[in-house]
Amino acid sequence: MKVAYLGPRGSFCSVVAEYAFPTDKRCAYDSIIEVIEAYEQACCDFALIPIENSTEGSVTMSIDKLFHDSKADVVGEFTLPISQNLLGHASEQPLELIYSHPQALAQTRNYLRAHYPYAQVQVMPSTSAAAEFVQQHPERPIAAVANYQAAEMFDLEILAENIQDSAQNTTRFWLLGKDKQRFDLPVQGQKVSLALTLPHNLPGALHKAISVFAWRDIDMTKIESRPLKTQLGQYFFVIDVVNNKENRSKISFAIEELVTLGVQVRVLGDYLVYAVDEV
Amino acid sequence: MKVAYLGPRGSFCSVVAEYAFPTDKRCAYDSIIEVIEAYEQACCDFALIPIENSTEGSVTMSIDKLFHDSKADVVGEFTLPISQNLLGHASEQPLELIYSHPQALAQTRNYLRAHYPYAQVQVMPSTSAAAEFVQQHPERPIAAVANYQAAEMFDLEILAENIQDSAQNTTRFWLLGKDKQRFDLPVQGQKVSLALTLPHNLPGALHKAISVFAWRDIDMTKIESRPLKTQLGQYFFVIDVVNNKENRSKISFAIEELVTLGVQVRVLGDYLVYAVDEV
Repeated sequence: MKVAYLGPRGSFCSVVAEYAFPTDKRCAYDSIIEVIEAYEQACCDFALIPIENSTEGSVTMSIDKLFHDSKADVVGEFTLPISQNLLGHASEQPLELIYSHPQALAQTRNYLRAHYPYAQVQVMPSTSAAAEFVQQHPERPIAAVANYQAAEMFDLEILAENIQDSAQNTTRFWLLGKDKQRFDLPVQGQKVSLALTLPHNLPGALHKAISVFAWRDIDMTKIESRPLKTQLGQYFFVIDVVNNKENRSKISFAIEELVTLGVQVRVLGDYLVYAVDEV
Repeated sequence: MKVAYLGPRGSFCSVVAEYAFPTDKRCAYDSIIEVIEAYEQACCDFALIPIENSTEGSVTMSIDKLFHDSKADVVGEFTLPISQNLLGHASEQPLELIYSHPQALAQTRNYLRAHYPYAQVQVMPSTSAAAEFVQQHPERPIAAVANYQAAEMFDLEILAENIQDSAQNTTRFWLLGKDKQRFDLPVQGQKVSLALTLPHNLPGALHKAISVFAWRDIDMTKIESRPLKTQLGQYFFVIDVVNNKENRSKISFAIEELVTLGVQVRVLGDYLVYAVDEV
């Protein structure tokens, strides 16, 4: 079995891939788009992509690509606590430049501004790439924001630990695939994710769509609006609802009712949520 | 009067600033955070920031900074049609690298992949910075994605025009300030924007909050969820509703009812929407 994931090795996505598929072939791709396309072109059996971070919000590239250019099903979700660290070389020199992926820089913005007000931040394609760059320039007063794995992989010192602004920093990852495999990880729950496109000619369409779940007491854990890319003000909505014994048949009825209202419904997936505890 | 905006000169934000404040002092800042902080520290009378693009969605940095770290009021909105172009030096050599801001690269992703499948894309802090970099390296087979202003400003050739993937590519900008100035630009409408934080102990809270507008026939033009940055699954919601003669008092009642439900309501602004037509 083969799983494609957002690389490079050492990325948070690779940590999840190792936990979920310890003995399978894991292939790193450079971008979320390439991961999803690898799956669409049947180059792999599963694809693993980040979908939401508790501080920075949805990974819009994942949601948009999945909605616009893919028919893949979500067959699992993994949640990973995110620990960001400042990695570099022990030195007396004050840091001049700090490198990382934009999401990691955003997650540590307040810390960096408070502790390194004079250091400039510079965007890199990934946290691993940032760590690798710092490794390659030991003579320069620079550092990278990345995870523990990157410190080990690139033999860097951890100058500061757990520097993320929000203590409860967690990222959700979606697994795309055909088979609903069971993983040997703690299960946190079960969810159904839907993408809804509302009809233009239905006044208060979003309210009516949400009512379908509300009056059935189906818990909605998330609603996200994303542009349809047609014109300003036109959106599709991604809705996550809790699935359990009580809800199962109610969700089917809710979807039928949505269709009757003229709402286009795509079931993105009905999946278990697993917790990955990073060591 | 002084207006702070997201620079550098030649950016889309600077185009709006020039239209709205042709005779006032306009100060470019390097980041959205710095623009909002300049306003908070009373270094300027107005601040202009991008808030949403029709293809790429919300500028989450603007919404988050405004919600979490600022009390500024929105006193106006500007919509600008966005035209992206490929700028460079006329040459026979195939392009090897294309530079731009991540949003501009995202807006032209399909075009670039179709026409320059072998060129790598490289992120820059702004479209103007990308154009400037290309200007400084006339010997290299590189190009920048940027607007017409940048072509003029950095004396580059337009290698391809209007390369954005969505023909109707438009960006909304918010003006923060104290005074509701009238601008000499066509008015497209009037809106009220609210940030809602829902109570934990109210089942179906989002449905109830939206109902407050729906049963009053108040048109909601946008709903956006953003993380509260506390933990995964905790959000605040930004809602835009149409304001007009009929709605005015209904909106006040709706807000009162939200407060009664235990919803924390922040009125981000009640403002006119102006159309800027880029030349």
